[in-house]
Amino acid sequence: MQFFYHPDLVSHPVFELLPDEARHCLKALRKHAGDEISITDGCGRLATAQILSTEPPTRCVVQLLKVDHQHALRPHRFHLAIAPTKNADRIEWLVEKSIEIGIEQISFLRCEHSERTNLDLTRLQRLAIAAIKQSNTCLIPEMQLIDFSNFIDSPAIQSIHHRYIAWCADDLPRIEFALQPLQGQDAMLLIGPEGDFSPTEVQLALQQGFTAVSLGPRRLRTETAGLYGVCVYAGMQV
Amino acid sequence: MQFFYHPDLVSHPVFELLPDEARHCLKALRKHAGDEISITDGCGRLATAQILSTEPPTRCVVQLLKVDHQHALRPHRFHLAIAPTKNADRIEWLVEKSIEIGIEQISFLRCEHSERTNLDLTRLQRLAIAAIKQSNTCLIPEMQLIDFSNFIDSPAIQSIHHRYIAWCADDLPRIEFALQPLQGQDAMLLIGPEGDFSPTEVQLALQQGFTAVSLGPRRLRTETAGLYGVCVYAGMQV
Repeated sequence: MQFFYHPDLVSHPVFELLPDEARHCLKALRKHAGDEISITDGCGRLATAQILSTEPPTRCVVQLLKVDHQHALRPHRFHLAIAPTKNADRIEWLVEKSIEIGIEQISFLRCEHSERTNLDLTRLQRLAIAAIKQSNTCLIPEMQLIDFSNFIDSPAIQSIHHRYIAWCADDLPRIEFALQPLQGQDAMLLIGPEGDFSPTEVQLALQQGFTAVSLGPRRLRTETAGLYGVCVYAGMQV
Repeated sequence: MQFFYHPDLVSHPVFELLPDEARHCLKALRKHAGDEISITDGCGRLATAQILSTEPPTRCVVQLLKVDHQHALRPHRFHLAIAPTKNADRIEWLVEKSIEIGIEQISFLRCEHSERTNLDLTRLQRLAIAAIKQSNTCLIPEMQLIDFSNFIDSPAIQSIHHRYIAWCADDLPRIEFALQPLQGQDAMLLIGPEGDFSPTEVQLALQQGFTAVSLGPRRLRTETAGLYGVCVYAGMQV
């Protein structure tokens, strides 16, 4: 089954697919009026719709038949907060793979030691749309780019009981992320840039109730650490 | 600390670095006679060596000072047996990330539904050398390309008590891989090609004592499924 994307499945029962989606539907998949297709809005909804009329290659009017408002969403949320890598490809790879395995929120942190402080969120959003279509999931994670100091002070993070900071320095006792009792629990994991979090950032996080964790015996690259966290959390939810 | 690679740390205490390694050592890192460097053989050994003499850019003679024969090896082995993806990049990515997180053996399976039946193992070996140097680990996983039928009949797999086949079909009861008691245990995980294992292949595996497992609620791409297995196993070993 092929999912299509449309940002709004709530306002109108009859609408036109976006031009690129229509092209994919009519040209690549050769759908016709009368055919049924599946459409997600990336916010958890999955609709069954019928094609009413077409004007190839880019016009395709559909009518919603039914909408599942919580399609295969996980009951609990994983929020990854991670410093973007110097190489943008590696963050794009992380976004794609995380969506495939399961993630609800990604905050990209501007840290003291960050080598990259800008990020093309529009491009990441496009990648995320492609990723949910490819993996037949319905949730585009919320994504933001934010300074570490603003992030760590935001009230929203206080509501998550299980919040962790992965940190490479060896001078602080740390527990293993993979051993935390996170089944059925929301969780947040912070991962620093190539040069790691600064001591000030670590102190701020600890003051805000974060627990320092290790991601195993090896020093992983930033994006690998992120995906390890995503996989281990997903494994705990089965 | 930067690791260098040399395939033989056993036969001779004094030897020349490979030309590419010497270039990296002398030109990029500007090492000189008298400096100490770390060298791995990709078989688990890590040596401290002293540079005796140099002829930049490609000649660098070193003398071993001490050799750790089991550097940071995991006490237990994870063997991933996976059908190569149509797109070779995705398998290369899997090899690189798996080495970073931890893997001891990779068998690339030629399956009935395989879209790719050839594989450049020499190139993968080069990639693996780069990956161990990058991630400061000392083990290049054993890698082979093998027909599914030969693999499943090989006596070696019988010695691994925990052997699993990940399979997407829904008509067989499956248990969750992430819930298996694999801490301190060797394990083997089979992952099929884009078109999944054939029913015959699944039957053969079950006859050979493999247990059918699920890798969570989502249908993952082949290489994502592989890395999920690698991460979950690594998380169980901490």
